[in-house]
Amino acid sequence: MATRKLSIDQQGDFRYTIGPYAEPVLEIEPGETVAVETVDAFGGKITGDQDRPSEALEGSHLNPQSGPIYVNGAEKGDTFRVTIESIEPRGPQPRGTTCLVPYFGGLTATDRTAMLHDSLPEQVNMSDVTTDGIAWDDETTIPYDPFIGTIGTAPEIDSVSSVTPFKHGGNMDLPDVRPGNEIHLPVNTDGALLYLGDCHAAQGDGELCGVAVEIPTVTMITVDVIPDAPIEWPRIESDEFIMAVGSMRLMEDAARIAYRELIEWMVDEYGFETYDAYMFLSQVGSVRLGNMVDPNYTIGASVPKSYL
Amino acid sequence: MATRKLSIDQQGDFRYTIGPYAEPVLEIEPGETVAVETVDAFGGKITGDQDRPSEALEGSHLNPQSGPIYVNGAEKGDTFRVTIESIEPRGPQPRGTTCLVPYFGGLTATDRTAMLHDSLPEQVNMSDVTTDGIAWDDETTIPYDPFIGTIGTAPEIDSVSSVTPFKHGGNMDLPDVRPGNEIHLPVNTDGALLYLGDCHAAQGDGELCGVAVEIPTVTMITVDVIPDAPIEWPRIESDEFIMAVGSMRLMEDAARIAYRELIEWMVDEYGFETYDAYMFLSQVGSVRLGNMVDPNYTIGASVPKSYL
Amino acid sequence: MATRKLSIDQQGDFRYTIGPYAEPVLEIEPGETVAVETVDAFGGKITGDQDRPSEALEGSHLNPQSGPIYVNGAEKGDTFRVTIESIEPRGPQPRGTTCLVPYFGGLTATDRTAMLHDSLPEQVNMSDVTTDGIAWDDETTIPYDPFIGTIGTAPEIDSVSSVTPFKHGGNMDLPDVRPGNEIHLPVNTDGALLYLGDCHAAQGDGELCGVAVEIPTVTMITVDVIPDAPIEWPRIESDEFIMAVGSMRLMEDAARIAYRELIEWMVDEYGFETYDAYMFLSQVGSVRLGNMVDPNYTIGASVPKSYL
Amino acid sequence: MATRKLSIDQQGDFRYTIGPYAEPVLEIEPGETVAVETVDAFGGKITGDQDRPSEALEGSHLNPQSGPIYVNGAEKGDTFRVTIESIEPRGPQPRGTTCLVPYFGGLTATDRTAMLHDSLPEQVNMSDVTTDGIAWDDETTIPYDPFIGTIGTAPEIDSVSSVTPFKHGGNMDLPDVRPGNEIHLPVNTDGALLYLGDCHAAQGDGELCGVAVEIPTVTMITVDVIPDAPIEWPRIESDEFIMAVGSMRLMEDAARIAYRELIEWMVDEYGFETYDAYMFLSQVGSVRLGNMVDPNYTIGASVPKSYL
Repeated sequence: MATRKLSIDQQGDFRYTIGPYAEPVLEIEPGETVAVETVDAFGGKITGDQDRPSEALEGSHLNPQSGPIYVNGAEKGDTFRVTIESIEPRGPQPRGTTCLVPYFGGLTATDRTAMLHDSLPEQVNMSDVTTDGIAWDDETTIPYDPFIGTIGTAPEIDSVSSVTPFKHGGNMDLPDVRPGNEIHLPVNTDGALLYLGDCHAAQGDGELCGVAVEIPTVTMITVDVIPDAPIEWPRIESDEFIMAVGSMRLMEDAARIAYRELIEWMVDEYGFETYDAYMFLSQVGSVRLGNMVDPNYTIGASVPKSYL
Repeated sequence: MATRKLSIDQQGDFRYTIGPYAEPVLEIEPGETVAVETVDAFGGKITGDQDRPSEALEGSHLNPQSGPIYVNGAEKGDTFRVTIESIEPRGPQPRGTTCLVPYFGGLTATDRTAMLHDSLPEQVNMSDVTTDGIAWDDETTIPYDPFIGTIGTAPEIDSVSSVTPFKHGGNMDLPDVRPGNEIHLPVNTDGALLYLGDCHAAQGDGELCGVAVEIPTVTMITVDVIPDAPIEWPRIESDEFIMAVGSMRLMEDAARIAYRELIEWMVDEYGFETYDAYMFLSQVGSVRLGNMVDPNYTIGASVPKSYL
Repeated sequence: MATRKLSIDQQGDFRYTIGPYAEPVLEIEPGETVAVETVDAFGGKITGDQDRPSEALEGSHLNPQSGPIYVNGAEKGDTFRVTIESIEPRGPQPRGTTCLVPYFGGLTATDRTAMLHDSLPEQVNMSDVTTDGIAWDDETTIPYDPFIGTIGTAPEIDSVSSVTPFKHGGNMDLPDVRPGNEIHLPVNTDGALLYLGDCHAAQGDGELCGVAVEIPTVTMITVDVIPDAPIEWPRIESDEFIMAVGSMRLMEDAARIAYRELIEWMVDEYGFETYDAYMFLSQVGSVRLGNMVDPNYTIGASVPKSYL
Repeated sequence: MATRKLSIDQQGDFRYTIGPYAEPVLEIEPGETVAVETVDAFGGKITGDQDRPSEALEGSHLNPQSGPIYVNGAEKGDTFRVTIESIEPRGPQPRGTTCLVPYFGGLTATDRTAMLHDSLPEQVNMSDVTTDGIAWDDETTIPYDPFIGTIGTAPEIDSVSSVTPFKHGGNMDLPDVRPGNEIHLPVNTDGALLYLGDCHAAQGDGELCGVAVEIPTVTMITVDVIPDAPIEWPRIESDEFIMAVGSMRLMEDAARIAYRELIEWMVDEYGFETYDAYMFLSQVGSVRLGNMVDPNYTIGASVPKSYL
């Protein structure tokens, strides 16, 4: 199929909430490939060590999203399938941004885990990023291993902050949302309304300080619709594994959701009995911690395809 | 001021999400009193013991809200003050509905605390409700002690399920939202956009099974706007106490938020030092558990006015 | 029955862990009343504003307990019943100690909720305490409303830090453990082996900063044994209510335990059906937050006796 | 050094609590290698599909431990280093036991997450286990990838159930406690008092149903003592990474502990600045979920040695 494009200019205003109330910026057919120009999670507002995140950023307008993209024919109850073709860094160097944002991160008090502490110090680390690697500092290069931090379809009537992951996908910060893998998302409204952004050049498990190596990109995705195939939570399929994704606060509840969804998948599509799958995953299941910093934490539970 | 009215007919379609995207159904001036006809949390769809909640209810359309009410002059950064004048039961008997909804409640697996259990049995308890009391069963009368289960102002750009309590108020299920008390809510958008519903004839701490004695009502409120007085979380003031309200999952995080907000209130308006307030509340603070069943749990932390 | 005594001298070394491995310091008969001299939760090591808790206290030796008291005839599977007769302050003034301990409390990072923050400032507030009141500062008197912060029977084979509340009781910090009330505890080992200490002249819900008004006391208790009546968690009975107690981290799990235990109690002894009790407590149950600061959080769930 | 032996016969009674109160069953010198015969986590009481765990097992006597082993010269404040040499299965086939235990596991109500559900069905899966693989069922072989599920040193004064992981190690159920790796544990008492058991032939992340492939083994370990090197939580070192381990309930608190300990390790021994390590781990840190079923959940956070 032909390749479509969603450029920064076509986008115009970026979105900060994922829901059914925004006008689509692009309309496509199932099967089409789209090249989406994304901005980084700070909308490019942090450009160097001299910037203070607390001054550069505004509370309710974080994590700008491209979209929504309307996919013709997608209807509530379908499954939306996104194949990630490639993620290329975009824009001038240093294009990789990492920083400490006050009261945000895994080892700090936050507005959700409220305490009386002063905030941790603000700090910025800019890095040159190419597909050959991330120049973290003078001595250290981190492999370029990009993925989409935030991708989701509109909920039916709610409009969810782009900072929050939930059933619709959203800010999962899960490195398995990477080129070569397929992401399945629920369709809750006509056209599905896809949003994406927040691409990362690399990220460790949990996105500990709350910020990965944030980069603007050109992200190529191919979009399909599986009719009449409702799913409740996102799913990921790679060559090696199938993975169910749960996003919740408590982290243990995210893990429970992911594993229970994986069991249901194994029962529905691979002929397992529920309790056999439960005992079998106890021996061969893998858990990936996406983030431990967002309003909901994200965990992916997977099983190798070789066992299915 | 004159009394305004928002009837069932004027309302038309009820709202299932609290946000800035719905058209106001009533426009009022600050200082006006409004008589709002509310429906019960099930929209009246459960009428007797023979009803099965799983058949009568639809997943994403629970907890119907009256509104939004647009208040002239209210602007982002103001505080919205609602004085609850009275809550009267409305409609034919038995008008009080309690039931067990599958995978919803405090002692059951839910979609957020996912497990492999079958759901608990469904059960309905209808009761006659007057201002004299609730006829729970042949032997037991529970005092009529009504309050508003869900009340909130629109977030700035998000639209939050009416089932969820958060910074904007929402489904707090906190019995202190009762006649005689003042509720303070943040204003995030022009006109504030007030939603309310889900009135309860009585409720214990935590709303254990997820359902109180749900009733349709006429609820009289007086609305005011305090300009340029931003608050982040709801607050309640009675003759006896001031109370800050936190809604979060973890319950301990709800408690932390409530107490930290209460400390800030005591510092800002009553001249306390932060750490003195912290130590003093350790001796005289009270905690009220609103709900332990909703997407976020709600806790109110209060201090007697006699100490302020 | 005659009154027995357990003085500071008889006690000798205080205990910092509640278990079956310590030698009893007193042996009594069921039905006897004992006057126990307790030290405060800091063993009296904090005596004035000049003291720094981080220097005065030692990590693994906090919350000294009197006991264990061996009760003749108590056997595994019995219920241990403690009636609290009185709690009188003891020792020189100012005898009431409140302070901020680094990395301990409800609004601070702790060793269990690990973060990168510096600790909050240390601060001490001493107060004169008599049965007429607590002289908190020059302007404020807090009513004397004493209770036992820590009371428990030995687990069967584990020995639990005196700082931790769990099934055996322990550091519940629940104000309902007060004079006039009966506390029921499980018996797990011969003689039950009762430990107690950590009395408070007053405390708010949650013990917010981690420290109440800590006082040394003479505490009078009467001890009984109900044979062959196993309970899993502590229970409290007052003239007005019955209360089940859960201690757990998460706070919601503490609430779930308390309410489920209360339902079982209502079913076993008061003829309720399980799901009727579940729906009824949703309307009339009360929740008391003991502590939100200890290794487990403590919640009591109660129902008025008038409904039983 | 010579190899010592701790056989089933020498052990006599197994231990169900890890603490300072048990008599050592073996005394060794630092540097010695010991071959420990372990029993499986059920003490061999489950032998076939016909067994019901609820009848075969007794509540407070689960997870039998070999030991304690007294190591001459080990003193409070030292670090205890265990190198795992090998883990060989032992005893007649089928020697691998997996089962569903009522109210225990990751997707069931438990005594800590109390609900009103009936328990899930009981089920047993026995499997032949050799070093060549686990014959899970007629079609599926799982690679033999053994590790020690429970290993710990005695706390100073507490005695902790062998089912519980915490600062002393214990029931971490972390697959990285495997042959070839070094485990560091705190020494809290003279002789360190090492306990171990609960070996697994394989296990997935989280030990989902609460039970791995449980086997009796001969486990070879070499024990060393690093004098005057206090650590607060267990650490693991492999050829590829260093890993800090946190065990806590909430799972997010386990993750916080693990990452904060890892940062401290990087600062103390590898010259990192705290906030640089925090931001760097956000890009390159790995998280391994040991268990999501025990009284505390266990998470290991690691960083590749190539970055140090």
